[in-house]
Amino acid sequence: MNNYVTYSYEQLKKFCTDAFIKFGFSQSESDIIVDVLLTSDLYGIESHGMQRLVRYHKGIEKGLIKPKAEPEVVFETPVSAVIEGHDGMGQLLGYKAMNMAIEKAKTVGMAAVTVRNSNHYGIAGYYAKMACKEGLIGISMTNSEAIMVPTFGKKAMLGSNPIAIAMPAKPYDFFFDSSTTVVTRGKLEIYNKLGKPLPDGWALDKDGNATSDASDVLKNIVAKAGGGIMPLGGNTEQSGGHKGYGYGMVCEIFTSVLSMGLTSNHTHIGGKGGTCHGFIAIDPAIFGDKDAICEHLSTLLCELRESPKANGQERIYTHGEKEVLACEDRMKNGIAVNVNTLAEMVDLCKYLDMDVKSYLGDEAADLTLQKSSYDM
Amino acid sequence: MNNYVTYSYEQLKKFCTDAFIKFGFSQSESDIIVDVLLTSDLYGIESHGMQRLVRYHKGIEKGLIKPKAEPEVVFETPVSAVIEGHDGMGQLLGYKAMNMAIEKAKTVGMAAVTVRNSNHYGIAGYYAKMACKEGLIGISMTNSEAIMVPTFGKKAMLGSNPIAIAMPAKPYDFFFDSSTTVVTRGKLEIYNKLGKPLPDGWALDKDGNATSDASDVLKNIVAKAGGGIMPLGGNTEQSGGHKGYGYGMVCEIFTSVLSMGLTSNHTHIGGKGGTCHGFIAIDPAIFGDKDAICEHLSTLLCELRESPKANGQERIYTHGEKEVLACEDRMKNGIAVNVNTLAEMVDLCKYLDMDVKSYLGDEAADLTLQKSSYDM
Repeated sequence: MNNYVTYSYEQLKKFCTDAFIKFGFSQSESDIIVDVLLTSDLYGIESHGMQRLVRYHKGIEKGLIKPKAEPEVVFETPVSAVIEGHDGMGQLLGYKAMNMAIEKAKTVGMAAVTVRNSNHYGIAGYYAKMACKEGLIGISMTNSEAIMVPTFGKKAMLGSNPIAIAMPAKPYDFFFDSSTTVVTRGKLEIYNKLGKPLPDGWALDKDGNATSDASDVLKNIVAKAGGGIMPLGGNTEQSGGHKGYGYGMVCEIFTSVLSMGLTSNHTHIGGKGGTCHGFIAIDPAIFGDKDAICEHLSTLLCELRESPKANGQERIYTHGEKEVLACEDRMKNGIAVNVNTLAEMVDLCKYLDMDVKSYLGDEAADLTLQKSSYDM
Repeated sequence: MNNYVTYSYEQLKKFCTDAFIKFGFSQSESDIIVDVLLTSDLYGIESHGMQRLVRYHKGIEKGLIKPKAEPEVVFETPVSAVIEGHDGMGQLLGYKAMNMAIEKAKTVGMAAVTVRNSNHYGIAGYYAKMACKEGLIGISMTNSEAIMVPTFGKKAMLGSNPIAIAMPAKPYDFFFDSSTTVVTRGKLEIYNKLGKPLPDGWALDKDGNATSDASDVLKNIVAKAGGGIMPLGGNTEQSGGHKGYGYGMVCEIFTSVLSMGLTSNHTHIGGKGGTCHGFIAIDPAIFGDKDAICEHLSTLLCELRESPKANGQERIYTHGEKEVLACEDRMKNGIAVNVNTLAEMVDLCKYLDMDVKSYLGDEAADLTLQKSSYDM
């Protein structure tokens, strides 16, 4: 872990909150944004926590993200709403939209809210969990910059298009949050940094052929030169790639299509983000005794964890279990921040005129940003 | 095609309808059942059409399926219902439940109906399409006999657990219907009949190791000896198997969990089916101008079809396109029935005292059933 510096949750929270306030967000807005970001680090999803800070920094600097944007509800029924984001901060739009879905679901039983013209909103699962904490089933989806190549294609047309769903259960909530691509771009970046060839079934070159060259794929993605990441299931029908492509489309329907926003293939072009989100909240009580239903789920999850293991395996996880374990570990032992990410945080301090040493300690004081991971 | 005999849609419809009437269903009930079955053949999903007839024949004969069962709505709100199926015919329960969801969605905007203690209901997509024909988004899911092995496990715990979703679009509706396993059992049966080794990433032996031996896997499934089919994404996290397992769980939640029915791992044990379904209908009009929204989807689908093809590929399909093409072909050129399936149909004629020759022609008259594909 020589390339990492460990900070406590509280220290990172203070740094991030002050940074977002300096960007022009209110205290309560900063609290929301920071909770989304740090929840990602607590869950062990490093790619969407501190590592993404630079994306918000540069996004605000370049005017893609407008801190003062006022979300506008452009359509509403008792079970639904559509929010025009006016290029605001994704986390704030996501938080507002899911809260609307939750309030409506508490009244009517189920509801869906879509958002257009937003920006990157962090981990999809955060918003699904918001509903879960209120005793509801939560679903959260977002489109994103085109990165998924459809089956038999060679041009990225859909985003990583994650779908997240959470439902209350004991001792661990069911919490499933995953991109509909086989992996995310962050995974390719890790392989690239390590100089390792990509595993089979992950990526395509600009002609649509399978490739293991992470550097080439990442360059082509940035240049929009063709190629990208395969859908879950790979690039053949035999391995089920058309299914991952199908789930990517489901995400696209519940985000851009039902908000009349930009589909993934039209986002992030010409200095415009245009990301769209979709949120659904469902009260299990519309199907009977809520406690009994959640216990029924808990029983299944327990049966899965206790079912026989494959040769050489010691544990079967249910979705959401790893995040709980990671969260306990990081609250106790701190959050490890990659030095490249830390250098970006130092750069942010300088940009916002924040004292590096008092926020990030002596380890950070001498760091200088060599190359930003922001590549838009 | 020597192993196939081709019949017109009308001829198969007459045969099936009369057979189900002989089983004790009313004319209108038989019409529904037969429409579900033949829609599968028309869509080119041979595994769920005439080939499944034997399953209903034996299911009724053994008392798993009760033709006279009266579905009972045990819980209901304006946006939801739970139906106790009392071991009735899956197609009739599915039809009733999706119609309830459609009617509620037309009133409230969106609705969900779950069903417990049902039986195999044919293709999941049929019910999604019912909503689509009414201008709504339709979602249909069903659990089934346990066949999917969770990541790092060696025992099948979840069913093939298909999720289907349809939404109106031009010229082809979006129509995505797929198991959350990498393939269905039917695919393994085809490889077994041909004596071909299974592709990598499909199946597990009884110890949870990857295997290409279709015969062994099928035997173990029937004997519940361990092993089964991998989730979409395979049996490692690197290839995304935990995601297919996650979608399998999503299906389980919207079928068995929210109906308080049997989870897949408890169905089909001790002479009891216990299959559960889930249906959701959503009116796009709750998000604004319905026509504009469906046109927005149509544009994306068109852009996908017209996007650049991978080297060596001539066509990118959008979901639902292949089914439309298959349907046109079969209405014009007839439906090819495998001789093994035909022998099962002849056996059914004898069981129900129907005249083989007048229903199925001279080609069928001399066929004798060697071995039923019914293996429950």
